[in-house]
Amino acid sequence: MTTRRALTSKLKVWVVLDGRVKFGDGRAQLLERVESLGSLRQAVAGMGMSYRAAWGYLRELERAAGFTFLERHPGRGRTRLTPAGKRFLARYRRFQQGLDDAGASHFARSFRRR
Amino acid sequence: MTTRRALTSKLKVWVVLDGRVKFGDGRAQLLERVESLGSLRQAVAGMGMSYRAAWGYLRELERAAGFTFLERHPGRGRTRLTPAGKRFLARYRRFQQGLDDAGASHFARSFRRR
Repeated sequence: MTTRRALTSKLKVWVVLDGRVKFGDGRAQLLERVESLGSLRQAVAGMGMSYRAAWGYLRELERAAGFTFLERHPGRGRTRLTPAGKRFLARYRRFQQGLDDAGASHFARSFRRR
Repeated sequence: MTTRRALTSKLKVWVVLDGRVKFGDGRAQLLERVESLGSLRQAVAGMGMSYRAAWGYLRELERAAGFTFLERHPGRGRTRLTPAGKRFLARYRRFQQGLDDAGASHFARSFRRR
């Protein structure tokens, strides 16, 4: 009888805009935090990312995407996602979730013990 | 009319043995090169990995897996994969290939332009 060791799988999924700007789980979290907190500065705090780096990344992302992700709500001073930004984020999360599910089933099939 | 920018997807897939040793595309390539070249030393050369690092990794991998991946063919001095090592590699490649295919179709579905 052999001991069966634990085997798990790990998956990372990005989309790449214009061949150069990567958008993955961490960036998706950044946008979700901006939407919840209403502020890029607050979103960045506690994520281990500098405001300057986040700002630079978002500028590159918007340039590569050809549309704006964030807008400042006039009067209320809150930053939020544009409709196009929300749509992109939702698509990424759908893509990622679909692949996470596919990953679990492919893993079970490929490594099933016989 | 808006310009449509290129959007592509990128996927990385690992399996994790015993909660600590990762095995992904680079390590699979290493094993494939050992099998083709008959030598760990030759396999490592040109992969940007030191022999010492490769050796240390393989020892950790075997410990975490609970079986041996490489064996030295007696008499001919060639190093090759054990049957268990080959089976594991084939399973990983099947898992990875299945997910690459799933990735392409999920990406097309999630990001299709409407």
